[in-house]
Amino acid sequence: MREIRVFCPATIANISCGFDVLGVALDSVGDEMVVRKVSKKGIRITKLTGQDLPLEAKKNVAGVAGLALLEASDYDGGFEIEIYKKIKAGSGIGSSAASSTGAVWAMNELLGRPFSKIELVRFAMEGERLASGVAHADNVAPALFGGFTLVRSYNPLDVISIPSPDQLYATVIHPQIEVKTSDSRSVLRTKITLAQGIKQWGNVGGLIAGLFTNDYDLVGRSLEDHIVEPIRSILIPGFDNVKSEALNAGALGCGISGSGPSIFAFCKGEAIANKVGESMKEVYQDIGIDYDVHVSKINTKGIRVI
Amino acid sequence: MREIRVFCPATIANISCGFDVLGVALDSVGDEMVVRKVSKKGIRITKLTGQDLPLEAKKNVAGVAGLALLEASDYDGGFEIEIYKKIKAGSGIGSSAASSTGAVWAMNELLGRPFSKIELVRFAMEGERLASGVAHADNVAPALFGGFTLVRSYNPLDVISIPSPDQLYATVIHPQIEVKTSDSRSVLRTKITLAQGIKQWGNVGGLIAGLFTNDYDLVGRSLEDHIVEPIRSILIPGFDNVKSEALNAGALGCGISGSGPSIFAFCKGEAIANKVGESMKEVYQDIGIDYDVHVSKINTKGIRVI
Repeated sequence: MREIRVFCPATIANISCGFDVLGVALDSVGDEMVVRKVSKKGIRITKLTGQDLPLEAKKNVAGVAGLALLEASDYDGGFEIEIYKKIKAGSGIGSSAASSTGAVWAMNELLGRPFSKIELVRFAMEGERLASGVAHADNVAPALFGGFTLVRSYNPLDVISIPSPDQLYATVIHPQIEVKTSDSRSVLRTKITLAQGIKQWGNVGGLIAGLFTNDYDLVGRSLEDHIVEPIRSILIPGFDNVKSEALNAGALGCGISGSGPSIFAFCKGEAIANKVGESMKEVYQDIGIDYDVHVSKINTKGIRVI
Repeated sequence: MREIRVFCPATIANISCGFDVLGVALDSVGDEMVVRKVSKKGIRITKLTGQDLPLEAKKNVAGVAGLALLEASDYDGGFEIEIYKKIKAGSGIGSSAASSTGAVWAMNELLGRPFSKIELVRFAMEGERLASGVAHADNVAPALFGGFTLVRSYNPLDVISIPSPDQLYATVIHPQIEVKTSDSRSVLRTKITLAQGIKQWGNVGGLIAGLFTNDYDLVGRSLEDHIVEPIRSILIPGFDNVKSEALNAGALGCGISGSGPSIFAFCKGEAIANKVGESMKEVYQDIGIDYDVHVSKINTKGIRVI
């Protein structure tokens, strides 16, 4: 196998109570990449459509992640990468993670799978470091493992796959506004109360239990965030309305995707997920902000060959 | 049925990362109670052996919990209660919870089960309020539901049963020293860092996932507490040694039971649990502090008729 074309899913991270630890892969939105094994050493981004991003490997998240893999490998050739971006940069649904993980996953396939998934997570995290300054794993882990993932610990890196109910859908609305990552980070408080923490880890426990037992109602009850959402949501115009309309339309729960501005809702079944999408749209139509809406089943496989 | 004799299990609360939310019921240590339906209204504690505790219903946790049930009931008679305490008060393994839950569970049986388990939790919490000033549910919930329980939320009260692997054992050592609940509470900080919180809810997620998937190793890795244990353990002489000896002897993880002074370890299999118990004993033998050791399978049923 010399060349491979892959689908690289969008991902929701910071799932409500699961700030910094819980993420999930989507199915209906993602990038496509073609990765080609070549004898010339190094990584070359030979094509990039859909977004205005650097082609130079060291400045591109896919390039940086790929170089991390190459460095750990005894393969003495190189790779060419074509990136067809469908996920908008800065949307909050793991645009950089899709590119980083797509590159390393495809390269690993072409090399005969010398690396484990957790090793691929580590390489892809280097792409995240380039994109945001922090080598976080909460988007790259679900993109690589599929489904819901828990990053239990970074040191040592410990990623746990969490199953989810069959009829669980995600609805995501991306209002076309820019929220700078630096802003969404700087508004966070470095201290929280112990009482807030207790609520949060109670909800994480409930969410994980609900996902294991296919208890949609418990999943919904646990999708609370008393720590980050009340602060970050201030940066997202219309957030409170979108959330209340989504819940009114039948969503199990609703929160900020990543560091925003996208807003996600989880729903039981496609019909409700579509209805929730409509209710979210109306809010931004009223405000006069453009938007994209994605309705997706949970992607349980992660990156795949297409 | 006029009279019932019940076993009321000891419980471990504040399970490492699950501070204030996660508890588990034990099988080999617990109180016994006899509860008798009588025509005379009210609750009378007619016998109490094993500990020096008040007999007056309003001053006894079993009495207070029972009165809370009576008040919600249309039954116009009363109950006599005999309490045979085996769990030492102040040991940190749910002594008051055993009495509160035993009373209300037995009364509910004798009345033909008019109340749900979650209602019984509420009544028993009144006993906890008397014992500690706080109507917490993290000991009464596992005593009533059996196994591991997660108190996801207090408002509304939401208790989730969590399964556990068959070969999971708990070893508990109770050093015979007094740690005042007020002291163990006053040392807690009311603020924590967001980074500590993230570690904690990552571990709660890992622990719940490990319990669902019978992944003993994941259970062990997740039994970390970066928030409460480092502070409260200072009040328990020998804690660090007990923990390191328990881990050396093969325990999956080790932490403070309740607010101490008891220390628990979870182990895979009875043989390791016994070995861990021996290793814990040696520490207190060296220090010269008396102790009790309990080795127990997880009690998946909770309170039962004997």
